[in-house]
Amino acid sequence: MSIVGRSGCGKTTLLERLIPALLARGIEVATLKHHAHAEGADRPGKDTWRHFAAGAARVGLSSPAEVAFFERRAAELPPEDFVRRFFAGTDLVLTEGYKKGPFPKIEVARRALSTELVSTPAEGLIAAAADFDPGAPVPRFPLDDPGPLADFLERTVMAEPNVEAWSVEIRVDGAKIPLNAFVRQAFSGMLEGFLAALKGVPESPGRVEIVLARKSGSRPPGGRTRDVGPDAET
Amino acid sequence: MSIVGRSGCGKTTLLERLIPALLARGIEVATLKHHAHAEGADRPGKDTWRHFAAGAARVGLSSPAEVAFFERRAAELPPEDFVRRFFAGTDLVLTEGYKKGPFPKIEVARRALSTELVSTPAEGLIAAAADFDPGAPVPRFPLDDPGPLADFLERTVMAEPNVEAWSVEIRVDGAKIPLNAFVRQAFSGMLEGFLAALKGVPESPGRVEIVLARKSGSRPPGGRTRDVGPDAET
Repeated sequence: MSIVGRSGCGKTTLLERLIPALLARGIEVATLKHHAHAEGADRPGKDTWRHFAAGAARVGLSSPAEVAFFERRAAELPPEDFVRRFFAGTDLVLTEGYKKGPFPKIEVARRALSTELVSTPAEGLIAAAADFDPGAPVPRFPLDDPGPLADFLERTVMAEPNVEAWSVEIRVDGAKIPLNAFVRQAFSGMLEGFLAALKGVPESPGRVEIVLARKSGSRPPGGRTRDVGPDAET
Repeated sequence: MSIVGRSGCGKTTLLERLIPALLARGIEVATLKHHAHAEGADRPGKDTWRHFAAGAARVGLSSPAEVAFFERRAAELPPEDFVRRFFAGTDLVLTEGYKKGPFPKIEVARRALSTELVSTPAEGLIAAAADFDPGAPVPRFPLDDPGPLADFLERTVMAEPNVEAWSVEIRVDGAKIPLNAFVRQAFSGMLEGFLAALKGVPESPGRVEIVLARKSGSRPPGGRTRDVGPDAET
């Protein structure tokens, strides 16, 4: 879901209150912040920042407590692709921004800024967190207490219909591997994204069959050629 | 490959010179920095930092020019897993650190610090960049001119043997999808990592068959249950 609202309305502050309230309800949260304008994400002067500034396409940082990853983009990654690539398996994704994005929206509004909302139910508005009555046909939640909104999100996440679009069967050396609903969804979503990037795949495939067979130990002769990079196929 | 060496020997400075020299040779580079101790990767006070500090498990940032991603870890992600998860498709990955890691090593050394190297060929040392003769049985490159080392890396990347371990066949609606060597390797690597996380999969599978069939349009009844998260299967 997307937390939207006018600049300065308190989206980040709401998220700061909401995340611990969701954690307390056993819901693991990922967040995605949208920047309409390019802005260096890393801390200037850090080693990773220096690698990126020198021209690395992708930069990672790994410590026992955290991983960080930065990637240069020629065009913005759509938020649904970001979620698929980085957030698979998280209970709930909350974006800050993406007013025009594809997700259901919760608008944050403060009387001091404006008494009109920027989003409508037709644009996906499903709730408002406001310190006044915005007169919209969606539930309103307080700004200063995250509890009621967390309860609403918990009910929404729990009630989320099972949207499995694919049956998935994996056999390894002939034996069927048991897969739960989460793994089936994550796997078919990943595979769908992968196939969409390949030439020759119809837009809405009905059946996908994949066979991997391990080759015998020896490495085939000949080196890698430089023209078989990602661009060669996508 | 890993750029290793004593603290303060100039690993980051070497990378800053090497990356543009590799780019000039048409080689796209990703870098991975190792921090032995936990350290917040994001810039304190930023919105994404506030989301993370509030308890989000994963935090993303997306702009037209860049994506950033941060993930809380209970245990360090091994560098080979980091590379597989984040760097698939990059021509060359250079790590800063990981002296005890699995990759070939290039040691940076300065006479002013010590005239002894910290790595040996037995530990994967394949070259040194030093301002003195370290007396090791590996090629030595200058510290102040990245050209010769970039040439060496270019030859190494170009000559990298084809390490395809799997034959891969994908059929969509009965038609075989053409796959180049890059896609075959990226796909089988991704799938291998995915399978390794599943229960019931033998340690070294020989043959993997996967069938996805799209279900008819209607959503099945019933909600998602809370116990089918990632932990239920891995």
